[in-house]
Order: sequence, then C-alpha cells, then structure tokens
Amino acid sequence: MPIISLLSDFGLKDPYVSEMKAVILSICPKVTLVDITHEVSKYNIMEGAFILASATPYFPENTIHLAVIDPGVGSKRRPIIVRSKKHLYVGPDNGLLILAAKNDGIINVYHIVNKKYMRKEISSTFHGRDIFAPVSAYLANGVKPEEIGIEIEDYEIPEFVKPIIKNNLIELRVIHVDSFGNVITNLHKNQVKDLKLKFNAKLSLIIKDKKLKVKFLRTYSDAKKKELLALIGSHNFLEIAMNQGNASNKLKLKEGNCIKMLIE
Amino acid sequence: MPIISLLSDFGLKDPYVSEMKAVILSICPKVTLVDITHEVSKYNIMEGAFILASATPYFPENTIHLAVIDPGVGSKRRPIIVRSKKHLYVGPDNGLLILAAKNDGIINVYHIVNKKYMRKEISSTFHGRDIFAPVSAYLANGVKPEEIGIEIEDYEIPEFVKPIIKNNLIELRVIHVDSFGNVITNLHKNQVKDLKLKFNAKLSLIIKDKKLKVKFLRTYSDAKKKELLALIGSHNFLEIAMNQGNASNKLKLKEGNCIKMLIE
Amino acid sequence: MPIISLLSDFGLKDPYVSEMKAVILSICPKVTLVDITHEVSKYNIMEGAFILASATPYFPENTIHLAVIDPGVGSKRRPIIVRSKKHLYVGPDNGLLILAAKNDGIINVYHIVNKKYMRKEISSTFHGRDIFAPVSAYLANGVKPEEIGIEIEDYEIPEFVKPIIKNNLIELRVIHVDSFGNVITNLHKNQVKDLKLKFNAKLSLIIKDKKLKVKFLRTYSDAKKKELLALIGSHNFLEIAMNQGNASNKLKLKEGNCIKMLIE
Repeated sequence: MPIISLLSDFGLKDPYVSEMKAVILSICPKVTLVDITHEVSKYNIMEGAFILASATPYFPENTIHLAVIDPGVGSKRRPIIVRSKKHLYVGPDNGLLILAAKNDGIINVYHIVNKKYMRKEISSTFHGRDIFAPVSAYLANGVKPEEIGIEIEDYEIPEFVKPIIKNNLIELRVIHVDSFGNVITNLHKNQVKDLKLKFNAKLSLIIKDKKLKVKFLRTYSDAKKKELLALIGSHNFLEIAMNQGNASNKLKLKEGNCIKMLIE
Repeated sequence: MPIISLLSDFGLKDPYVSEMKAVILSICPKVTLVDITHEVSKYNIMEGAFILASATPYFPENTIHLAVIDPGVGSKRRPIIVRSKKHLYVGPDNGLLILAAKNDGIINVYHIVNKKYMRKEISSTFHGRDIFAPVSAYLANGVKPEEIGIEIEDYEIPEFVKPIIKNNLIELRVIHVDSFGNVITNLHKNQVKDLKLKFNAKLSLIIKDKKLKVKFLRTYSDAKKKELLALIGSHNFLEIAMNQGNASNKLKLKEGNCIKMLIE
Repeated sequence: MPIISLLSDFGLKDPYVSEMKAVILSICPKVTLVDITHEVSKYNIMEGAFILASATPYFPENTIHLAVIDPGVGSKRRPIIVRSKKHLYVGPDNGLLILAAKNDGIINVYHIVNKKYMRKEISSTFHGRDIFAPVSAYLANGVKPEEIGIEIEDYEIPEFVKPIIKNNLIELRVIHVDSFGNVITNLHKNQVKDLKLKFNAKLSLIIKDKKLKVKFLRTYSDAKKKELLALIGSHNFLEIAMNQGNASNKLKLKEGNCIKMLIE
C-alpha cells in the first residue's frame, strides 16, 4: 500500500488540503495519506523545509512526500519531482524539498512537464491540487518519474545558515520554535559531540545583549519545573527549553534569531 | 473502497470528530475518511456551505459527504440525505448541503427516519455522532437512501446574494476569506467572461467609502510583493488578494462585506 | 483491519504527530489511524484523560489507543500498556490512560520493558515516537502485551474531584470547556437522575459570588438564542451552555473552577 505524506501552509480551515486528497484518491484509491503539517507559516519555505526534513526519516521506503509552500505559483518556477535513495518528493522548485531529499541522498531531479499526469484544467493559483496532487498519485500507482518529467540539474538549493564555532564560543541561529516553545538551534548533535560537551556542563548564553546561564542536560525533566535548560532535541539539534514551560516566550526568541553560547 | 468526507464546526481540540469517525469505522471498517474541515466558524451555515461546495467537485463519484453545522440540533429540524448525480450528502436540513448538491444536480432528498440506521441511544445534542455518522456508514456499506428515509420536497434552500451588475459597475459581496487573507467574492468566472475583462485591466474598487485601484491579473506572483490585485481564484470566483500578503487584513474585509467595482 | 487512535498535546504545526504515524506505518502498514486530538493543553494530563475517556467508548473492540501527554518523558516514569475489557491503551504511567480504561474495566497493566519492540535509537525527549508508537504498531500486528512488558500493580491512579451533594445544594467542578464554550461539569447523568431533576426545572447557580438562574432543558435550541441553560451533554455530564453562544466566555469559567448549584 503506497503512502503519500502531505505538507503545506494551507491551514486546516479552507478546503484546499481536502481537494488535494480528493484528487489523489480519484487516481489512487488504495493510498494511505499522512499529514505532516498544514500549519507552516504562510510562504515560509525555510520552516517548511525544516519540518519536512525532520519528519521524512521516519517514513517507510518509497513514501511519496507532497509538499507545497508556493509563493511563486503560476510564475516560471518549475514543478519538480526529486528522487532520493529512499523516497520521492513532489513540489515547487524553490528549495522546499531539497533539505529533506539531501538527507536521504538525491539521485535525480525532474522538471514535471507531461500534461497527461496533471488535471485537465490547471488553475494559475493552485498547482498543489492541479499538478502536484495528481503527479503524486500517479507515482503512487507506479508511474516512473522519467515518464512525468525531464531531468534537470539547475534546481534551487536553499542556503541554511551554519553555526560559527570559535573555540568555546559558538554563534547559533534559531531554525524553529515548536508549539511547546522549545527553541531549536542549528547546532547538530555531531557538532555538540565535537565540542565535548558533557551533561551538567554550564553554558553562558547571550540573547539580545542579555546574559543567562543554563545547564546542558539529558531531558526536560532533569531541570526543575519552569527552569531553563539546553539539551539535544528529538531531531538531533541543540535546543533551549524550559521544563513544563515555554522557553521561546520567556526569552522572546523566534526563528532566525541569533544566540551566542559560551561553554565554561 | 468507499470514501466518506467530513465537514463540521466542531474544531479539532474536542473529541467530537473522532467520535463520529469511531462510529463510522464500527459499521464500515474499510472506509477511507477525508476531513474537509472542522474549523468552520461556529454555527456559520453559509461558510460551511461554501467550503463544502468548493471541495466536493474534486472527490470521486459516490463519495458520501457528512456535514454537520447544526445550531438546531435536537429541535424539529430534520436530518436528511441528499442524492445528487454524483454524490450522497448527509446532514441537517438547514441549507448546508444544498449548494454543493445543486452543483452536481440534486436527484432526491430524504428525511432520515429509520431508527435501525441510528445509534441506539440518541443524545439530543450530538446528532453528528448518533444519526449522521451511522447513516453515512450504512450508505458506505451499500444501504439505499430509500431504506433509511422518506422522500421530501420541502427541504431548506439557502439564499445566496448574487452580484448586481449595471454596465461596468458591479456590486460584489465577500463570500469567504481564506487563511491567506484572500477575499473571495460572489462574482463567478463566467460572469467575468461576460464582462470581457482582460488581464492587466484596471479596476476601481470602493470599499467602505475608500477608493483604490488594482489590476486584474492571472496569478498572485504577477503582482509585486505586497501589492494588491484581483484574479480568478482556484474555485472560479473573483478574488481580491495581495501577493505574499494578507488582503483581508489590509482592507479590513470580512465575509458578508460589500465591494463596489468599476471596470475602466 | 486494526485501528490505532492517537491523542497528544503536540499540536498540529510540528512534525511530531506525523513521525509517530510514520513509525506505526513502517511496522503495521494496514492499520487505520484516527486522531482523537493533538490540541490538549500542554502538559494537562487531566484534560487529556477526560477527552480520551469521552472518545474511547465509540471505538470498535480491540482498538489500540496511543496517548501521549508526557511532562515526565525521559525520567523514571514508566511506559505502560493497559489492557481493558474492550481496548488496549499505550502511554506514560501518569494517570492519562486510567480514566478511559476504568470505564471499560481494567484487566492488566504492563510496564513496557522489551527493547525489541522499541525503536533502536531512543531519544530522551520523544518516547511517543520511539517507544509508544512502535509498541502500538506491534500490538496492532498481534503481539501480546505480556511479550512487551511485565505486569505491574502500582500504576498511577489519577484523582478526579467528585461533586459534593448536600440535599438540593451541589458543589460542582468544571472538568472541561469545549470549543463551543460549553462548560462541562463533573455531575454525571446518573447523579442528575438521583436528584430527580426534571426538564424546565429552575437552577440557581453561584459562580464567583454572582448568582444567576438557568433552566434545565433537553437541548441547546430549547433555550432562546444567546440564553444560558443547563443540560445533559453528549458525554452524559451536566453542562452549562448558551444557545448559539459561548457560555464559558460569558461566565468567565474555565477548567477547575467551582460552581454552586441550588435546585429550586
């Protein structure tokens, strides 16, 4: 049974998500549909790319990931299919799919051109329903990407800011704030290992000219209730969190903000 | 594999939607369930009717659409099944189902009366779970509408305000504001064609005594970033939008508001 | 076809819910997944327990209910399976599962210990994905709870405040406010029967030192529009509601608040 996952910034109030699902089920009735999220901030390709790349590693092989954050819909931006070692990705050529696909290892990228696999009437404002949904469904039916598109090499590659590490002073960037208020930074678990950071180590953080100290701990409940801490989150990035509280509200941090961190 | 779509104003926090699904799966385990939305504004039958009518054309034939916006639950308002040329609709007799069913072509309407197809204990506050969900599931199992209800002809028909067109001056009504802030009016694509409106034409809009000019364009990204525009949206109605911005916030427009439009 | 229901406080924006589903589908591809809710207030075990116990009676026998509200994740709190007469429950040992399971009749409780049925790499912050999801999927595949855990008897039993009834004066507690603003109290239908309350009876309520009178009615629409009323809600508890309005906003009532009620 094929699986199609869906991610977008469409929200859940409007009929848009259900229209994509209806189109998919019309072509591939036996598919299993799994929503990743439809609550990505409007037009925020980076946030969508991060959430997509967080979720896809847990899906079975050959899942088709349909992702639509598409401020350039109807313009010249191309609709694409990305084939990675593990999965297929369908969406706009604006960087959204690449972070996730890179994690698996990208094999080919195809520019979707074959109208046979699109809806007959294509709106200029909703390619999610009229191009990406039917293409995903045909892929789920076993149609090969090379029948649907032509291979390209000049696809958009998004640039993600990397942490700047100078000895024990690290400049971090907030890549996502989750609904618990956990502040997820761009420092990967492997880089934390290289820094030889140990549990209970003290970290000095400089956030918007204010200094504070937190401990590096294993899990939320190793801190006292409402105490701030740093830890490796479930997606393997360093997180600033508050046990049973909201670190993002407390520290007024949001996506894109800078944090300086000194390891004592 | 039968499909049941679900639409309501129940929201996603409470257990209500899952209870309807649980009742359906108890009767018809092989069904595919697709949420259209559960975020319709509380008691807003018109909004629900518009969203339902937007989504249903994309579903495969013989889909059963279960829709519940039901301020009159437990009163004398009747539970009904509508059979259209393409689909079946189940919900309260308050106009909610009729706009969508009319698009397909209504064949018959049935007043649900046969208790055999309801839950044994029927609450006076939640017919979605106790009547509409089991009826939808039995329809998915192949039970005929005429076994469940008796045909009626005096069902509620909702009235939708139509645009008033006087030469090149048009009085529009806002029928929906989507989560992107796109302001969807009641002027249909076919009426736009009759007006011989061409891309790049200038439109003068009068909104709450304020005048502004927008261009009629093909898609959002044909306007500059944060520029207002008019276009035909993905449901074939004229929309006032802002490229990568929120037109509804900018113009302080909401459902039911009036817009005067002059074609130059 | 096995069914797994899911309940959490994860929200729908982050990838967390989809990661649990992806893990489940990797192990048990033929499962039907039903979301109860993911919008429980963060860390609110009582609210989660109430919503879970409201929804589970409507699910078919042998459903597996996966519920995660887990402020103690990564600490010594145990992961458990509860086998009731009707269902299986999987989640943390913090009281969340017990209210629902008690309604069915608890048979055994198991402490999950067998690593064979967990993900290979277990994060210290997301047992929903790394322990509860795979365990639920293996249960759906037919693995017995006794192969996964060892029986325990000292599991956490949550304490719910009961109404205090002194003749015709009753002290109620608000156990949930739903998205319509209906204020659900802890007075069960059976207790209402014992009080011989009849439709149209007048009730005096004392809420935060203010007095008001409402009628006890059968359904919302038996009251005038925007009129307050009391009724038995769809989960068999006494509710304070407003016909087509929001009683919770009007009365400034929220979960945990006290209401005194006098039957005239």
